[in-house]
Amino acid sequence: MSRKSRRLRRRRTMVGHYTKPGAAPGVPTIDPDAHPSALTVYGYGLDGFEEHELEDPAGIGDFLGKWPVTWVHVEGLGDTRMIYALGERFGLHQLSLEDVIHTGQRPKLEVHSEYLSLTVRLVKAGHPIFTEQLSIFFGKNFVLTFQETPGSDFEPVIRRIKEGAGRIRDAGPDYLAYSLLDAVADHYFPVVDTLEARLEALEDKIFNGSGHDSSVAIHDVKSQLRILRRSVFPMRESLETLLSTDLSMIEEASRVYLRDCHDHVMRIGDIVFSLEDYCSDLMNLHLSMMSHRMNEAMRVLTVFASIFIPITFIAGVYGMNFNPGISIWNMPELNWRWGYPFALALMASTALGLLVYFRRKRWF
Amino acid sequence: MSRKSRRLRRRRTMVGHYTKPGAAPGVPTIDPDAHPSALTVYGYGLDGFEEHELEDPAGIGDFLGKWPVTWVHVEGLGDTRMIYALGERFGLHQLSLEDVIHTGQRPKLEVHSEYLSLTVRLVKAGHPIFTEQLSIFFGKNFVLTFQETPGSDFEPVIRRIKEGAGRIRDAGPDYLAYSLLDAVADHYFPVVDTLEARLEALEDKIFNGSGHDSSVAIHDVKSQLRILRRSVFPMRESLETLLSTDLSMIEEASRVYLRDCHDHVMRIGDIVFSLEDYCSDLMNLHLSMMSHRMNEAMRVLTVFASIFIPITFIAGVYGMNFNPGISIWNMPELNWRWGYPFALALMASTALGLLVYFRRKRWF
Amino acid sequence: MSRKSRRLRRRRTMVGHYTKPGAAPGVPTIDPDAHPSALTVYGYGLDGFEEHELEDPAGIGDFLGKWPVTWVHVEGLGDTRMIYALGERFGLHQLSLEDVIHTGQRPKLEVHSEYLSLTVRLVKAGHPIFTEQLSIFFGKNFVLTFQETPGSDFEPVIRRIKEGAGRIRDAGPDYLAYSLLDAVADHYFPVVDTLEARLEALEDKIFNGSGHDSSVAIHDVKSQLRILRRSVFPMRESLETLLSTDLSMIEEASRVYLRDCHDHVMRIGDIVFSLEDYCSDLMNLHLSMMSHRMNEAMRVLTVFASIFIPITFIAGVYGMNFNPGISIWNMPELNWRWGYPFALALMASTALGLLVYFRRKRWF
Amino acid sequence: MSRKSRRLRRRRTMVGHYTKPGAAPGVPTIDPDAHPSALTVYGYGLDGFEEHELEDPAGIGDFLGKWPVTWVHVEGLGDTRMIYALGERFGLHQLSLEDVIHTGQRPKLEVHSEYLSLTVRLVKAGHPIFTEQLSIFFGKNFVLTFQETPGSDFEPVIRRIKEGAGRIRDAGPDYLAYSLLDAVADHYFPVVDTLEARLEALEDKIFNGSGHDSSVAIHDVKSQLRILRRSVFPMRESLETLLSTDLSMIEEASRVYLRDCHDHVMRIGDIVFSLEDYCSDLMNLHLSMMSHRMNEAMRVLTVFASIFIPITFIAGVYGMNFNPGISIWNMPELNWRWGYPFALALMASTALGLLVYFRRKRWF
Amino acid sequence: MSRKSRRLRRRRTMVGHYTKPGAAPGVPTIDPDAHPSALTVYGYGLDGFEEHELEDPAGIGDFLGKWPVTWVHVEGLGDTRMIYALGERFGLHQLSLEDVIHTGQRPKLEVHSEYLSLTVRLVKAGHPIFTEQLSIFFGKNFVLTFQETPGSDFEPVIRRIKEGAGRIRDAGPDYLAYSLLDAVADHYFPVVDTLEARLEALEDKIFNGSGHDSSVAIHDVKSQLRILRRSVFPMRESLETLLSTDLSMIEEASRVYLRDCHDHVMRIGDIVFSLEDYCSDLMNLHLSMMSHRMNEAMRVLTVFASIFIPITFIAGVYGMNFNPGISIWNMPELNWRWGYPFALALMASTALGLLVYFRRKRWF
Repeated sequence: MSRKSRRLRRRRTMVGHYTKPGAAPGVPTIDPDAHPSALTVYGYGLDGFEEHELEDPAGIGDFLGKWPVTWVHVEGLGDTRMIYALGERFGLHQLSLEDVIHTGQRPKLEVHSEYLSLTVRLVKAGHPIFTEQLSIFFGKNFVLTFQETPGSDFEPVIRRIKEGAGRIRDAGPDYLAYSLLDAVADHYFPVVDTLEARLEALEDKIFNGSGHDSSVAIHDVKSQLRILRRSVFPMRESLETLLSTDLSMIEEASRVYLRDCHDHVMRIGDIVFSLEDYCSDLMNLHLSMMSHRMNEAMRVLTVFASIFIPITFIAGVYGMNFNPGISIWNMPELNWRWGYPFALALMASTALGLLVYFRRKRWF
Repeated sequence: MSRKSRRLRRRRTMVGHYTKPGAAPGVPTIDPDAHPSALTVYGYGLDGFEEHELEDPAGIGDFLGKWPVTWVHVEGLGDTRMIYALGERFGLHQLSLEDVIHTGQRPKLEVHSEYLSLTVRLVKAGHPIFTEQLSIFFGKNFVLTFQETPGSDFEPVIRRIKEGAGRIRDAGPDYLAYSLLDAVADHYFPVVDTLEARLEALEDKIFNGSGHDSSVAIHDVKSQLRILRRSVFPMRESLETLLSTDLSMIEEASRVYLRDCHDHVMRIGDIVFSLEDYCSDLMNLHLSMMSHRMNEAMRVLTVFASIFIPITFIAGVYGMNFNPGISIWNMPELNWRWGYPFALALMASTALGLLVYFRRKRWF
Repeated sequence: MSRKSRRLRRRRTMVGHYTKPGAAPGVPTIDPDAHPSALTVYGYGLDGFEEHELEDPAGIGDFLGKWPVTWVHVEGLGDTRMIYALGERFGLHQLSLEDVIHTGQRPKLEVHSEYLSLTVRLVKAGHPIFTEQLSIFFGKNFVLTFQETPGSDFEPVIRRIKEGAGRIRDAGPDYLAYSLLDAVADHYFPVVDTLEARLEALEDKIFNGSGHDSSVAIHDVKSQLRILRRSVFPMRESLETLLSTDLSMIEEASRVYLRDCHDHVMRIGDIVFSLEDYCSDLMNLHLSMMSHRMNEAMRVLTVFASIFIPITFIAGVYGMNFNPGISIWNMPELNWRWGYPFALALMASTALGLLVYFRRKRWF
Repeated sequence: MSRKSRRLRRRRTMVGHYTKPGAAPGVPTIDPDAHPSALTVYGYGLDGFEEHELEDPAGIGDFLGKWPVTWVHVEGLGDTRMIYALGERFGLHQLSLEDVIHTGQRPKLEVHSEYLSLTVRLVKAGHPIFTEQLSIFFGKNFVLTFQETPGSDFEPVIRRIKEGAGRIRDAGPDYLAYSLLDAVADHYFPVVDTLEARLEALEDKIFNGSGHDSSVAIHDVKSQLRILRRSVFPMRESLETLLSTDLSMIEEASRVYLRDCHDHVMRIGDIVFSLEDYCSDLMNLHLSMMSHRMNEAMRVLTVFASIFIPITFIAGVYGMNFNPGISIWNMPELNWRWGYPFALALMASTALGLLVYFRRKRWF
Repeated sequence: MSRKSRRLRRRRTMVGHYTKPGAAPGVPTIDPDAHPSALTVYGYGLDGFEEHELEDPAGIGDFLGKWPVTWVHVEGLGDTRMIYALGERFGLHQLSLEDVIHTGQRPKLEVHSEYLSLTVRLVKAGHPIFTEQLSIFFGKNFVLTFQETPGSDFEPVIRRIKEGAGRIRDAGPDYLAYSLLDAVADHYFPVVDTLEARLEALEDKIFNGSGHDSSVAIHDVKSQLRILRRSVFPMRESLETLLSTDLSMIEEASRVYLRDCHDHVMRIGDIVFSLEDYCSDLMNLHLSMMSHRMNEAMRVLTVFASIFIPITFIAGVYGMNFNPGISIWNMPELNWRWGYPFALALMASTALGLLVYFRRKRWF
């Protein structure tokens, strides 16, 4: 991946695109890296389904009159003018629109009189995983979604609408919003599953002692978990608020589905927490195994060296050139009959003595 | 244990079986690894008891009319059709059924108008321990339970029903549900007791200095505690909700039992917390003991080497081949009368001096 | 202390005696290690005091009629039948009795219509400290206490009753219950004081550099603090509930005393927290001092070795046996007039140069 | 930067200027390092805008009568008399004024009957970043701000007033206060973005193994995050209080803007938390990489040394000067035909044997 | 400082003086180390001020009748009888008096019908800092304070009363109590400021690499912060309770001052938290720098040694005494024309080769 696209991904995931200090609220700073916008409209009801890609938001009016539910889906946030036109069409607050464009928003729920706005983060598998902002607005007869980058993340939902499978064609925009949220939540499962499998594999490697670079790998998983945490926890809060507030926009029948979606998000949150603990534990294990192995090696080698040091010294002594001819005190061993065997025996017994001593001290 | 069965256990315990992103709610993804389902029905009341293994859920109707309490127990979640048939028979919500099949649910309580649903995790002793999902549904005259794998975990409860011991035959389905929950909770005690005993044994080993691989063992215990924590804490929350909500399905007399069960779960949670602390402390102790011992060995050996280094040098000096015949400055020691004893004395005093110095510095 | 009694102490303190999974509630599993039970009854009022050791709980009836307050104190939980007889006499719930026998309960408060039940943990000084369960039941005219092991922990309270000192003879069972609770709380002070003094002594040892085995000692204190924490914190919660609930069984005048007792428990909790922090800090300090000292030694020794290595090499060079007679290129130094002094000077200057270099690098 | 100015920055950021113990409240201690004060007044309304730099606060009266909103902005807190004069003019409480001068206040909100007072901390980019106190008071027709040091932090807000862009000229002092707060919040984004980029760069360096001094750099970032945290979190609390309290001073229309500002502050808080985690992870990674590299080097070198030790010993043995002429036991090898090749072969095979052994042990 | 006085300070700060287990409440254990008591009475009102040192509490009656506010200040808690006499005079509860004498109380607020009691901890600068208990009782027309040791901590407050500066002479006992509390809080500022400056100096030392004993110094600061935390946090809680409770004893006008005092305490708490983080960060930095420097030294030295090891071996080989006269295979090099230069070149190239290899591996 190019350095630039990595930088973009990071920005999308971490700080996002933000406003200039002191700028007027509701007037977004334009992001030169934003994807060009593409608009698709879906209209559906019990008796049919229609789909169009539009260039001009003006065409939406036809759908709103004709179908019980109109879903306007925008991919790419490059066309600020189109986004503002849509905002005006559906009576959205300027600050809501600013939040669409200034990505990197904290997942949140906003209750307005005519519509609800939900900002969540859609996880994208890959390496490293990243998240992008998805803004969902829904009112009496419409759902309006803005996604940062193109992608077929909602393909199965669209198919269910097309095929009229399940409740979706009977139900209102709240059920569609739920379906999208649920799809967002469900995207997290394979991601955490993959991360968990990676940690499992790492654990095996660490136990086998073949994980030289495990700390880098663990750090990598941890970074990705940090990203997930930042996306999942505020989403959980938003769903809790949504469930505890009494909103006319949400039908009673949809509540049980939302609660289910909330359970999913809780579960993801639990798994993320659990995996973070797992990471820390693995890191500790890895470090402790590494240092254990290192210590083992060092200790044995040091003992080894320590045995040779004194016997090399003995060899050095008998390598001195003192002249035995001068006096009987000058290295008489050199002329002993058993001098050499004596020296070898001295060395051997020294080595053995040390070996026994070190062993008894349990130094190797 | 085979790699595959370990993988299955892990999946059961960690992420579980999950839905495909964007799939319609209530339509479960089929899990190819699920156990085949087996259905047993128990009917009982003050004046009797009946038990049948059924192939077809249709036979349950007889029980429901005949006995005050009918308990339908399903082991193994492979037969999705049977589960759905049961769901329909007892009027369960589709999402509830989906949760039965998509295992790995967070322990939770759900209140429906006609029934309560409790999802808990049953701990299975063994090494490593693992947990599986148990779904309990109960209404006015029935209890319906789904367990992931076959097992005789509720044998004592069944015996109490058969023998009519205690209150169980007098009481309603809420008491049976409590009895099952209590059995679930009680399964945790021997598990945490075993873990505690393992940690105690590890502590002894660490103090004796014989625990070379303690970090692996501690890591292992910690992983199992993490699993327990994830099961126990949400169960605690569910029981708290159950106790604080005013539900007609639970008789006043059963409340005190549920509170007792809640106390048990609290107690397990406390022990798990405490053991996690214990683990961390042991790990620290282990690392500190290891590094202490390592340091001791290294220091003594280094001091040892450091004493030999200068005296080996002296031996080296007198091993040089300078010709003493050329001038009186060229190694006159070689021809001294006491040259060799002088050299030996020089070495001995150097070694002694260093020994004293190092000792005074407390380096060994 | 024998291994078995240590095991018993641990069980008492950590997991306690627990029920068999699936067993009927209220039917306790018998603990073979329980102490035999001894029953003492105290009756008192403004005008007198009476004390009897009874074999048979039936004799209690006389006291209940005669004295405003009857205190039944049982030490040792071996006699399950007697405990159940007492329970029946005072109308206690079966689950309450089960909790008495299944020790290792979490400290808790239970409100029943006719009595209050408080489970707390009594700390026993010693090494290691341990805690045992004390169950306090009190109603309109009685206090009933069950203590795991015999001991004279409440001697001062009994003396105050006997001597009629203070308010105790005027007041009801609630004041007696408070006095017992207060005695339980007060037992913690000398224990934490001792632990604090031990940590202080350890700190001094660490600063003096004489604490080779400090990590073991700190670990030991930490284990004991963990035990205290598990006893004190739930007790605090219980007292908070007791104070915030409006209970007819507790007179207004006793409330201020209970609040005082609550303050004591809070204070103990604070000290325990503080000491736990102290432990961690000491451990860090110890490790850092150890590694600092180790590093110092290693560094100096390594520098020392590094200076001798090159000069030993020089000695080795001039110990080579090349024949200077063959050509003028073959070790002419050996026949130089100042060969030996030159070699010595070379060694000395090398050593000096390295010394200066290492010093400048601040390696020793 | 000079030592003194660093000290000043630190004082401004950490403890601030504080009162003398026991001094009367509302009588500020004068800070000799405070900047001289400069006063600017802005008056505006739907139909115009006026700006003056004043020497004397008395001139403000004209503005208050003439314009719907009067904004008095003071930069530098050296002129205590002027500050008190302003305070009297706008009816501020003495303690509020003391808080203006005793900088280092915790960000807070105070509700008075005639005005609201908000104390926040303005972040100043640079290295190291620092924060200064900004006190905002606003009432029915005025906003009064005190900033510790001069700076053009609100230039864009002033420009919006001058140019009449957006809502600002239509709205009351609450909207101006919001605009200032929003500008304060927005200043944090580039700061955290910069810190994040620094951490990213550090991560790359650590992975490449070129980050020798990373721990210093990480420590530096962490210190700055600590400063941000201390500023952002209380600000969040203040905004929450502001939003949850029903204050007549804030129009309904401004609420949605304040909520947006609150979202920004939440987001900054999240990022700060996330970056703190990032720091810890990076530090761990760095240490683990460092120690890994160190271990690698040490191990290979030790193995290397360990191979030469025994062969050097062999060379030493054959360098001994025992006289082979005395007996056939005295170093007969010296006179063997193949003595030298034998010795070399012995050395080579020893070295090889060790190499194989160490390799098999995976010590290098 | 003598060992005994250090022990006393510690006891005062940590566990304090506590009751004997089981002792009757309200009957304090006498502390042999308590300071002798000294009693001073201040009476004041709008029109005057009077001050007396009294031997006998009986003389207080005159003041109570004469002055709107009477402040009785006791320094030293040795005279239990006097304290009890005062308690009776002002109608204090026995438990309140016990708390005065059993120092080491947790800072707390107690509301009685006729008086309020506040227990706080007064910080004493010095090294190490310590804290002592200050008990403040105030009712309709009196303030009663008990301080553990003599000291002129409230000198400025007394001066303000004497000189009639500020509001103090107009206001009631609640304002005096506030003034004392504020003085207590203000004493913390210079203490935390000093600690912060010490940490700053330590940071500089660590960066310069001259902080050999930094871990001891950091540990010391941390210990002192722990003491501060234990004093400040409960004080914060007490003030919160005081502010949130509606008490007739506190005039509306004093509330704003109490809130200000609460802000100060919050601010101290924040600084303490922040400094604790700072400590941890510094400790980590210190350890990482230490180990970094150690590693640097060790690595360079090891590389250094590793270069000399093989060349010393070569020297050793040519120092062997094989007889070249026996065969042409026996060390023919010794008699080569260029034997010695060849050996030197061999050594030099070996050394150079290793140097290049190690450098390339980046081991130094």
